[in-house]
Amino acid sequence: MTQSLQEHLNPDGLCFGCGPANERGLRLQSFLAEDGTTVADFTPWPEHNNGLGFLNGGIIATLLDCHSGVTAFHEAEVRGWERLGGAAFSHVTAGIEVRYRRPAPLHDTVRIVGEIESSTEPEILVAVRMEYDGKVRAEASVSWKRWRPRP
Amino acid sequence: MTQSLQEHLNPDGLCFGCGPANERGLRLQSFLAEDGTTVADFTPWPEHNNGLGFLNGGIIATLLDCHSGVTAFHEAEVRGWERLGGAAFSHVTAGIEVRYRRPAPLHDTVRIVGEIESSTEPEILVAVRMEYDGKVRAEASVSWKRWRPRP
Repeated sequence: MTQSLQEHLNPDGLCFGCGPANERGLRLQSFLAEDGTTVADFTPWPEHNNGLGFLNGGIIATLLDCHSGVTAFHEAEVRGWERLGGAAFSHVTAGIEVRYRRPAPLHDTVRIVGEIESSTEPEILVAVRMEYDGKVRAEASVSWKRWRPRP
Repeated sequence: MTQSLQEHLNPDGLCFGCGPANERGLRLQSFLAEDGTTVADFTPWPEHNNGLGFLNGGIIATLLDCHSGVTAFHEAEVRGWERLGGAAFSHVTAGIEVRYRRPAPLHDTVRIVGEIESSTEPEILVAVRMEYDGKVRAEASVSWKRWRPRP
């Protein structure tokens, strides 16, 4: 698969974390792996410092959130849960809880891996983690809820 | 008080979210208010889009995290809990849980407010929220734990 999930799902997207059309954004690109997980590699920018020479926790949260989002949107697409009238996406997140396990590098590429934890039309749960050098650096479980526009 | 907590606590800080010396960072500036809370105003950049024309959730997480941090560091300073040998800060965060309540604007200034929920030397809990137009847009409770360097 040469096209990223972001390019496939929303090529004009302006999201700071993963919109392909946001020229000043992080432009995270996520791909479907053969084992059914989703993967993304990201090389931090020098300014993504946490103040201690490692990757900033807010940037980590941004990357995990975006990666979990396209993982959920892909799942919704496969299941046939289309966007409902007026909604920009099939599902929205109500929150994110990030657990920081170990420092992540500022000067090297990190890998983000996403997996569907559970999946129903009302709620898709995505487990997402950041890895480097074989160790988990941060992880999150993100709930994506069906976006039902109010009439 | 004209000096921000960041300038007071760590003027050479390179943190992406609030380091005064990170020229490409968000450079959040937080201040102590008369009522004992901490406040910061932040005007998003055009690229901080969530893809729907509102403020990006990852940027919100970054701002809440940084603001809770200086709130905790200020508390530690007042209590006399100094940095322990080799530690860059008195406390570190193990994670953050953000609850997104309403969209936050991309094109206007938002306010971030922090309050100490509970405070002991081993753990400082900070409640932090983002407000706009009188309504809470997002909130988090952040645990800052005593940084004890291993010998």
